Amino acid sequence: MSDHDPVHVLHPEEAWGFLRSHEFGRLAFHLVGEVHITPINYAVDGERLVFMTAEGSKLFGVTANTDVAFEVDEIVGERATSVICRGRARTLEGQAAYVVERLPVRPWVDTPKSVVVAIEVDEISGRRFDLTRPWLRDLPTG
Amino acid sequence: MSDHDPVHVLHPEEAWGFLRSHEFGRLAFHLVGEVHITPINYAVDGERLVFMTAEGSKLFGVTANTDVAFEVDEIVGERATSVICRGRARTLEGQAAYVVERLPVRPWVDTPKSVVVAIEVDEISGRRFDLTRPWLRDLPTG
Repeated sequence: MSDHDPVHVLHPEEAWGFLRSHEFGRLAFHLVGEVHITPINYAVDGERLVFMTAEGSKLFGVTANTDVAFEVDEIVGERATSVICRGRARTLEGQAAYVVERLPVRPWVDTPKSVVVAIEVDEISGRRFDLTRPWLRDLPTG
Repeated sequence: MSDHDPVHVLHPEEAWGFLRSHEFGRLAFHLVGEVHITPINYAVDGERLVFMTAEGSKLFGVTANTDVAFEVDEIVGERATSVICRGRARTLEGQAAYVVERLPVRPWVDTPKSVVVAIEVDEISGRRFDLTRPWLRDLPTG
C-alpha cells in the first residue's frame, strides 16, 4: 500500500456539483422485500433529484417503499469519482409535475414516460479514488 | 417516438459475456431495513460474481440480508448497455476463499480488503438502448 490515502472524501457541495454536472445514474429501490437496481436519467432540482418513468415495477417499488439509494460515477484516467445519495422517493402530481418543464430532465431512450418522481435527498456522500491498475500497463498501445 | 424499438433485450449468454468483459459495477444491498448502493470491482466465476471487501457496513449488510442486486453499464457513442443481476451474497471462508487466486479480482483502489464475497446469481437481464440525445448536437466541436 502506498503512503498516501487513495480515497478522498468530497465536500457535500462538491458532491452536489458532481450530480449537477451529470444526468445518468443508478437507482436502488425496494420491491416486495427485495432490493432492485436500474439505470435512470435524472436532473437536480435544489436538494432533490427528479426523473421520469413509466407505470411499472420501478414506480410500484418506490411508491410502496419510498426508501431509495442512488449512485453516479465517473472514471477519467486513473481517477474515479462516485457520489451516493439516500433519500425518499415520491411521485409528483398536478402542478408539482410541471417542475420538469424548467429542468433538464432528458431521458436518453425514446420510450413513453409520463410519471415524474422526485427523490428528496437526506444523505449525500462523495468520494474520489486514486486508482491502481498496473495491469493496464500491459495493454497493447499504438 | 421513432418507428423502431430503441430497447433490445440481450440473450442471457450475451449478458454474461458483458459481465465477463467488465470489472466495475454497483452493488445494491439491504442495511438495517434500508437500501444502499456502492461501487465495487468484481470478477465472474461461472454463474456467480466474486468481490473483495473489508469489514464494514457493506459486509454487515450482505451478511444480515443476503438479497442483493448488481448493475454494470457502458455507454459507447449513441448506444448504452446495462446488465442487471439479482442474487444472494455469501462470505467465502477457508479453502473457498482461495478462488480469488485464480480469478481476475482486481480492486482498483489500494485499501485493505480481506473478505471474499460471492454473489450467486439467480436472475440476469441485459438490455441495449439506442440513445436519443439531440442536445449533444449543440455541443461545440473542433
